[in-house]
Amino acid sequence: MFDGLSHEALAARERALSAQFESLKKAGLALDLTRGKPSPEQVALSDGLDEALGGDYRLDDGTDARNYGGLLGIPEARRLGAELLGARPEETIAGGNASLTFMYQYLLHAWLNGPLGPETAWRHEPGPLKFLCVVPGYDRHFTITESLGFELLDVPIRDGGPDMDEVEALVADDPRIKGIWCVPKYSNPTGHVYSDEVVERFAHLARRAGPGFRIMWDNAYAVHDFDDAPPVLVNLLDRCRAAGAEDSAVLFGSTSKITRAGAGVAFMAASPANLSSFAKHLGVQTIGPDKVNQLRHVRFLRDADGIRAHMRRQASIVRPKFERVLHHLDAGLASDGLASWSRPRGGYFLSFEAPEGLAAAIVGLAGEAGVKLTPAGATFPYGRDRRDSNIRLAPTYPSLDEIDRAMPVFVTAVALAAARRRLGQAAAHA
Amino acid sequence: MFDGLSHEALAARERALSAQFESLKKAGLALDLTRGKPSPEQVALSDGLDEALGGDYRLDDGTDARNYGGLLGIPEARRLGAELLGARPEETIAGGNASLTFMYQYLLHAWLNGPLGPETAWRHEPGPLKFLCVVPGYDRHFTITESLGFELLDVPIRDGGPDMDEVEALVADDPRIKGIWCVPKYSNPTGHVYSDEVVERFAHLARRAGPGFRIMWDNAYAVHDFDDAPPVLVNLLDRCRAAGAEDSAVLFGSTSKITRAGAGVAFMAASPANLSSFAKHLGVQTIGPDKVNQLRHVRFLRDADGIRAHMRRQASIVRPKFERVLHHLDAGLASDGLASWSRPRGGYFLSFEAPEGLAAAIVGLAGEAGVKLTPAGATFPYGRDRRDSNIRLAPTYPSLDEIDRAMPVFVTAVALAAARRRLGQAAAHA
Repeated sequence: MFDGLSHEALAARERALSAQFESLKKAGLALDLTRGKPSPEQVALSDGLDEALGGDYRLDDGTDARNYGGLLGIPEARRLGAELLGARPEETIAGGNASLTFMYQYLLHAWLNGPLGPETAWRHEPGPLKFLCVVPGYDRHFTITESLGFELLDVPIRDGGPDMDEVEALVADDPRIKGIWCVPKYSNPTGHVYSDEVVERFAHLARRAGPGFRIMWDNAYAVHDFDDAPPVLVNLLDRCRAAGAEDSAVLFGSTSKITRAGAGVAFMAASPANLSSFAKHLGVQTIGPDKVNQLRHVRFLRDADGIRAHMRRQASIVRPKFERVLHHLDAGLASDGLASWSRPRGGYFLSFEAPEGLAAAIVGLAGEAGVKLTPAGATFPYGRDRRDSNIRLAPTYPSLDEIDRAMPVFVTAVALAAARRRLGQAAAHA
Repeated sequence: MFDGLSHEALAARERALSAQFESLKKAGLALDLTRGKPSPEQVALSDGLDEALGGDYRLDDGTDARNYGGLLGIPEARRLGAELLGARPEETIAGGNASLTFMYQYLLHAWLNGPLGPETAWRHEPGPLKFLCVVPGYDRHFTITESLGFELLDVPIRDGGPDMDEVEALVADDPRIKGIWCVPKYSNPTGHVYSDEVVERFAHLARRAGPGFRIMWDNAYAVHDFDDAPPVLVNLLDRCRAAGAEDSAVLFGSTSKITRAGAGVAFMAASPANLSSFAKHLGVQTIGPDKVNQLRHVRFLRDADGIRAHMRRQASIVRPKFERVLHHLDAGLASDGLASWSRPRGGYFLSFEAPEGLAAAIVGLAGEAGVKLTPAGATFPYGRDRRDSNIRLAPTYPSLDEIDRAMPVFVTAVALAAARRRLGQAAAHA
């Protein structure tokens, strides 16, 4: 961007960007691009949930959803979750309102009680136990394993998924690595979809790592496609079963970003051995999940076709917002070669790679001008992005108009941070 | 019952009871008096929940209940839960569909992370850790502490609550006792209400036991009164605060047996120090509870007066069933002096004390005749009733007609088991 500029020209450019930025600050914006929240228009698509029951609370098998029972979820919801996760209904359980809770509970169970019986409890193994984290990734995943005392190891993501050479080398060397966090489709925050080869390598990794290794497969964006010919993710549970390592795959998903954020239904799929062990743990703390809400969801979404139709309506709201963000990035920064960003075909985030060492400065500048961004580093374990480069952008919640006001602030902040650094470097060399 | 009978008369009586029992068996009953489930008529009282939102998802503070956020519950639900538990709204949190989950999570947190910070984590204390269980009591409580590795100690319940002399002596002697399980109002299964003196003694016990001791106060039947002048339970949190031991009281409740079993809202109340520590643990595994269901409940129940009115409708269904069970017990067994039973003024259970050593036999006989009872011993830790005497009766789910068919089986089973034993004893002495 600033290559070949004289010191004077660079200084003039910095002054121009500063002036531009000051005028943006005067607009008094208060915009938030931090969290992957659906917009009001998106959640309103599911207001029909509240009429979906129509006073009929009977399941197909005659069970009254308003009463106790059903630890693993109602059969109808388990079938829906199985379609969503690409698993068999008997391998799929339907829970409460948060797949994150299933993830925590599953790992807590593996650590406390053992994933496949008391003699397999991780807490009795020599430590420190470790967990692999694909980075940039989802902070709440990392926090779960951190809270359970795991040491977290970064593995970088590439175009087709995690760097599998590195994953394989780490796992081969260290039996204390108990698993890995993955968001395999429209990965949070980069938007990557794991390639067929990566999924296949995971299955073989699982076989080699042995029965105590767990691939935490958070398929949060399984059906969150922007177009009608979306990328297809290979089924990890099938591949692990074929490789003789079915106990290593644990799949998660929910309707949180299909219907209501925080009032949907969570799903988990795993081998029968995993599920029967996990069910004992669940049964200690609950009689069962909210079956009425599960039934409400099944009546409203019906089946995979119903979900697809619903997600097309979601896409018509979300896709234009991603396009608008990309438009601002392309128009404002593409010619500079300063930074790069992902172009997801679905999901909730896109990922911006700032010039190394500038992410925190950019987030700080944007904040000064009233545009709140996910804190730099938040997409890494311990909040530590060694390159200080990744910034997660979440386009779903703001309106198009808000994106049009926020993105010039972001683009200007990037250019200004880069100009200031270049000017500082030039001064240091002068 | 059989005192003064000759051997022949006793044998004749046994034959008569056996014949009566055989004819009851021929009726081919399939009745279930096991679980504390509300009846279909009771849950139908809350079908208005599904119209309660009326398309309006806004909280008083403008928050959209359909989106993420609100770890500790919506303010409206916290206020409702505070009224229910007799706590302050800021001391009360509203969660998912199960207070049992709050109980598990709270104790897990105390054990894993420490109730008041990492240096207070129970798992780092010298073991074996122990927990007091008021017996007969609620099996799911006992299972929670058992699953976390606690050794469980029985404390018998008396008319006004647990035997506090014994509780005080045990706790004074053993710092490894970390707490006690209590159902203070209409105790499961005896129906006792803890007296003012017992609650006061708990508060002073807490002060003496120190900041690591926890009274798990499951007020599941707080508003489940049969009449309009119900017994009043003294507020434990207030008493503990007055005694300088507010961190020791942890209160639980839910709408599971007010609105829908398994699709209600759970509440927990505790000191600010407890709550802020616990909130960190909750925040690792969830973004927040189902706010839509919380709002639905607040709109439907409104406030304490709304709950009271609703519970009067519940009582009009439940009370006659208790009366009918008592009628059968009184008519069939009172004159014999063989057994005793409680006469609760609310709640979900009544408790039957069979002649010592006969509970399992009675449950077995009733089962042969198609009347399923809670397994003998289930109301004790490890399923072990040393006296083999307590049987829990749950009158809420069956209809009056089903009670009229089930109770003669029960009454006959009690008399038959007693007659057979007496006959065996007589034979042994002959």
